[in-house]
Amino acid sequence: MYERLRQEVFDACQMLPRTGLAILTWGNVSRVDRKNEVIAIKPSGVPYDMMKPEDIVVCDLQGRVVDGHLRPSSDLPTHVALYAAWPQVEAIVHTHSPWATMLAQAGIDLKPFGTTHADTFYGPVPCTRPLARNEVDGDYELETGRVILETFQERGIAPDQVPAVLVASHGPFAWGHDAKQAVENALVLEQCAWMAVFDRLMDPEVMPVPAYLLDRHYQRKHGEHATYGQR
Amino acid sequence: MYERLRQEVFDACQMLPRTGLAILTWGNVSRVDRKNEVIAIKPSGVPYDMMKPEDIVVCDLQGRVVDGHLRPSSDLPTHVALYAAWPQVEAIVHTHSPWATMLAQAGIDLKPFGTTHADTFYGPVPCTRPLARNEVDGDYELETGRVILETFQERGIAPDQVPAVLVASHGPFAWGHDAKQAVENALVLEQCAWMAVFDRLMDPEVMPVPAYLLDRHYQRKHGEHATYGQR
Amino acid sequence: MYERLRQEVFDACQMLPRTGLAILTWGNVSRVDRKNEVIAIKPSGVPYDMMKPEDIVVCDLQGRVVDGHLRPSSDLPTHVALYAAWPQVEAIVHTHSPWATMLAQAGIDLKPFGTTHADTFYGPVPCTRPLARNEVDGDYELETGRVILETFQERGIAPDQVPAVLVASHGPFAWGHDAKQAVENALVLEQCAWMAVFDRLMDPEVMPVPAYLLDRHYQRKHGEHATYGQR
Amino acid sequence: MYERLRQEVFDACQMLPRTGLAILTWGNVSRVDRKNEVIAIKPSGVPYDMMKPEDIVVCDLQGRVVDGHLRPSSDLPTHVALYAAWPQVEAIVHTHSPWATMLAQAGIDLKPFGTTHADTFYGPVPCTRPLARNEVDGDYELETGRVILETFQERGIAPDQVPAVLVASHGPFAWGHDAKQAVENALVLEQCAWMAVFDRLMDPEVMPVPAYLLDRHYQRKHGEHATYGQR
Repeated sequence: MYERLRQEVFDACQMLPRTGLAILTWGNVSRVDRKNEVIAIKPSGVPYDMMKPEDIVVCDLQGRVVDGHLRPSSDLPTHVALYAAWPQVEAIVHTHSPWATMLAQAGIDLKPFGTTHADTFYGPVPCTRPLARNEVDGDYELETGRVILETFQERGIAPDQVPAVLVASHGPFAWGHDAKQAVENALVLEQCAWMAVFDRLMDPEVMPVPAYLLDRHYQRKHGEHATYGQR
Repeated sequence: MYERLRQEVFDACQMLPRTGLAILTWGNVSRVDRKNEVIAIKPSGVPYDMMKPEDIVVCDLQGRVVDGHLRPSSDLPTHVALYAAWPQVEAIVHTHSPWATMLAQAGIDLKPFGTTHADTFYGPVPCTRPLARNEVDGDYELETGRVILETFQERGIAPDQVPAVLVASHGPFAWGHDAKQAVENALVLEQCAWMAVFDRLMDPEVMPVPAYLLDRHYQRKHGEHATYGQR
Repeated sequence: MYERLRQEVFDACQMLPRTGLAILTWGNVSRVDRKNEVIAIKPSGVPYDMMKPEDIVVCDLQGRVVDGHLRPSSDLPTHVALYAAWPQVEAIVHTHSPWATMLAQAGIDLKPFGTTHADTFYGPVPCTRPLARNEVDGDYELETGRVILETFQERGIAPDQVPAVLVASHGPFAWGHDAKQAVENALVLEQCAWMAVFDRLMDPEVMPVPAYLLDRHYQRKHGEHATYGQR
Repeated sequence: MYERLRQEVFDACQMLPRTGLAILTWGNVSRVDRKNEVIAIKPSGVPYDMMKPEDIVVCDLQGRVVDGHLRPSSDLPTHVALYAAWPQVEAIVHTHSPWATMLAQAGIDLKPFGTTHADTFYGPVPCTRPLARNEVDGDYELETGRVILETFQERGIAPDQVPAVLVASHGPFAWGHDAKQAVENALVLEQCAWMAVFDRLMDPEVMPVPAYLLDRHYQRKHGEHATYGQR
């Protein structure tokens, strides 16, 4: 019944070690099916090279397991919170990819230093505030979702225009219209973070691109006037 | 009819992900056939691992499609402008390779810090000025070509002696006598950029090699007195 | 008789070049069998791609060879010292993995700058003091073991909570409940060291995560209240 | 007649792209046969993936081709000069491996910052002075050999104790008892250079290891009292 959904999440999971975004059991991928009101997500602590499509866990939109023989990723409540708040998001990926995680650990936004960034992210990829003690001690994974939502709301960022975030002290989450696109956004994030780390080291005063260049590149690839790609 | 031209562009495209110069759908390669007045170029937004030789688009020298079932790379007008101005250039490659792109994002020339650079580039690989708002809002990809030409003209650089450029805030373009050589020049550029980034970080005052060493190495590999390689 | 023990050490050895933790003949892996009072360890100076399971050397708990046709790793006395002092350690790996070794060479602790670190190491991975001349000139490999033990004792660190150390001027050792886990801990160490090097370069004042976040992440994965993974 | 010699050089050449020490046609490997008074060396400008064992060029000890259908590496006079001066050197490799080349471009010695270095190099790997204009304009490749010899002589370094050099503005040469060992020394050099670059960036005052630690590690692996490896 959930075969296609599981296969999509499984295939996206396999992209993570192949592209260097995750090692061992790190990271996770989920996909929501809003019509059937279920979320498929990577099982907790299973290495990518031992995983099978049937290991993917199927939960309801509150995060209760409805199908599967394994426990879901411990980060499931973060995914649940984002799906509940953001109807336009259909797949989420979390990694500890090194360059993006470095920025998250330093609490630094990923600013748009070039058109590589602008092609995918319509503005800075924000870094959240650190979680307070009571948030960490409480429902930690849910609070992680909440602080992501708070960051986008307070800074007026649309999640479909900036499909990624850096969670302070932790690492990146990215999302998209399907699991493959979510992983690709995580990969673009990692490449942009790599370049940003060195641009900052070479020139601590390095400036983001001007708004008109950000606009031009983002609009080339997104929206009704996009000219990039095939029709 | 355009089979050989397409195959050459296709083969060069496949070198990009293999050598780490491009991921996903990034970058593009073109080849001009000046006798038949056509340009073969990568299709827009097609991932390298899904591409087939027949997907390569054939255009005339003004950039109008003359053969092919897909849309050409959105950067085609940049290629058209360079081919029109530089008769000695026969193939062009554009990438977002990280080390070269970092320098482009920081707006920094790639100076000849060693003989690895001098073997291929007879002087600094220049970084263009940033495009102005009206250029970005106007015919952007054509203006990208124009600012490259302006840079080489104003600085008196011969495009066959320095077969690459860094477009500010964007990334590198490289060229050559055929598509393979253009990709190889992009690969040399990336290695030199990698080393230059760290030489600058270790010693902000690091100096380029003296002109006589640049001369010696460049002339070993190029021109009628070249001693490198086989006859 | 020691077939399973040898195979476990051999398999863990093969992980080292594959994960980039060791090249050539560098590094070593050992596994103790406390019931049979033997240690199985990599032979000295044998390249990983020429090694066979039967090359693994079996020694007693004092480091005397009891089975095998080759000489044991020259670092064996370090392993012997750690097994003697730490009953909870059952496998040890030593590498010269670059990012961890850089920190060791600079004499810098690996501090917990993020949750990636906290998931595996319950506090800083300490760097030992440099060995004194008489220690280096004396029973050097044994003294290496002693300075590791001294570091953990003086700083009150439990080896099962921080399963790795940086030996000053030398490189990392990591350990675990079996050889595979020891290598995985060495791999996590390397990823965390990589990120810590850049976090330090970007922000010399970068702060470790607060104790409550360290607690939360470590406890998610370890101990009786762990929620990570499968049961 | 020269089949074994050619095969040894060919095999060592194939290690260069595989270990990341060379791309395209960069670098070269040679092997001397002092009894038969010949040197086998990589042909000039031939890509590693197109090379066949019979392409290796055999020259006399003055560098004149005695067997083979291709032209020898343009760096042959550097190899000839080193073989003539250093009877204990039997194989030489030259690369543009990035981390070592960065140091060469910055004109910086590779100091022994840790035991990884001390295991192979008994002291700093020196960087030569820059070549003067008349040396570059004259018999350049021979002068490269001369400045290497001058560096070792003036600084009192024994080439069998420090089997590598950084040629200023150019890149590394390494050597050994056979072609495989020469490449392995080039690989150790590259790993040590990588770590040294970052140790310098993290701590501009970082100190080399003390002489007694350098001694201990070097002597573990070299000379009659060596304890590393198999007998």
